[in-house]
Amino acid sequence: MGSRELDAGRSFVLRVKHDSDIINFVTCVAKKHGIMTASFTAIGALKCAKLGFYDQEKHEYVETLLSAPQEIASCVGNISLKKGGPFVHAHVVLADLNGNVKAGHLLEGKVFAAEVHLIELVGEKIVRRKDGVTGLSLWDI
Amino acid sequence: MGSRELDAGRSFVLRVKHDSDIINFVTCVAKKHGIMTASFTAIGALKCAKLGFYDQEKHEYVETLLSAPQEIASCVGNISLKKGGPFVHAHVVLADLNGNVKAGHLLEGKVFAAEVHLIELVGEKIVRRKDGVTGLSLWDI
Amino acid sequence: MGSRELDAGRSFVLRVKHDSDIINFVTCVAKKHGIMTASFTAIGALKCAKLGFYDQEKHEYVETLLSAPQEIASCVGNISLKKGGPFVHAHVVLADLNGNVKAGHLLEGKVFAAEVHLIELVGEKIVRRKDGVTGLSLWDI
Repeated sequence: MGSRELDAGRSFVLRVKHDSDIINFVTCVAKKHGIMTASFTAIGALKCAKLGFYDQEKHEYVETLLSAPQEIASCVGNISLKKGGPFVHAHVVLADLNGNVKAGHLLEGKVFAAEVHLIELVGEKIVRRKDGVTGLSLWDI
Repeated sequence: MGSRELDAGRSFVLRVKHDSDIINFVTCVAKKHGIMTASFTAIGALKCAKLGFYDQEKHEYVETLLSAPQEIASCVGNISLKKGGPFVHAHVVLADLNGNVKAGHLLEGKVFAAEVHLIELVGEKIVRRKDGVTGLSLWDI
Repeated sequence: MGSRELDAGRSFVLRVKHDSDIINFVTCVAKKHGIMTASFTAIGALKCAKLGFYDQEKHEYVETLLSAPQEIASCVGNISLKKGGPFVHAHVVLADLNGNVKAGHLLEGKVFAAEVHLIELVGEKIVRRKDGVTGLSLWDI
């Protein structure tokens, strides 16, 4: 458990397709370009979203559906390998028209418009494996 | 609509001037150094701010003025070209003394103190053009 | 007061140790690898946290303890030199099971699981010095 040094690889900016799911979109870009490890940020707006909060005792996600439009005030995420393919892990902070802010693990997000900056990281592969302590799939580093 | 591969260019850290507007300050740095495309993050504190929420149906920004001091809990932004010059697009999450959190598109932010990390991206220019579907100025990629 | 151009150095991803303090963990990684300047983002979850809000008039931090588990919806931070060693400055947005969002300067955060992407910046050293106007230790640039 600790740190892994990697080299900065390719840089990408993405304009996420209107009405697509942002997680699926980033996953498809990763598959298309052979990106196995990356870090990214995004801003924009969603038409609706599904957030997850991981219950640290029960080891399960509690889901929240947001059916109203949301600004993506922040999205920070990464890509690593899970079950042989690129897996996108992203957390977001969302804000609605009335100024209500919701935040957490982004399970689904239908895009109104979104701009992503992605930095590929190259070197030894980062693989997610089930962790007994947390119940999560964590990096094998 | 999709992705554009760019090369990582210069890296900058900025100490944003006390009492300046953070959007103006980053725009001025971009002009001074000839930065046409970039991604950045920032943390710090604002004296006051104006946030926007884009109404996805009416295609107009609803503005919220925050007159009290705010921590910049997160700021994620980018620079691309609009009308021939560098255009700063930034979203923030702000928190006040009472723990109230507001978030959205940052229209104005008077700086108490702020630290920015900016990565220039070089290659084919990224230009914002009016998008008919959303009414926003989006990247031509 | 302004900008400093630096070169992108090494890239690291960190899996922060369960039950460790995230600020201490990143500080230790910086010391171990000789990282003097860096920018980072993180996502994950905390068991508990202590946030600070800097009172811009009184020039002192007001602290808030969050004793319940929290998603790290966003963490943006940097490393620079203070009193001769690497100093970690991080802001977070946290969300609890009930959807309550808190945000601010991260003073302490006990990790459930956390993933960090860190970019070293190399060149002229960035040193924090007391700033008379804000009462904060700010970059000498």
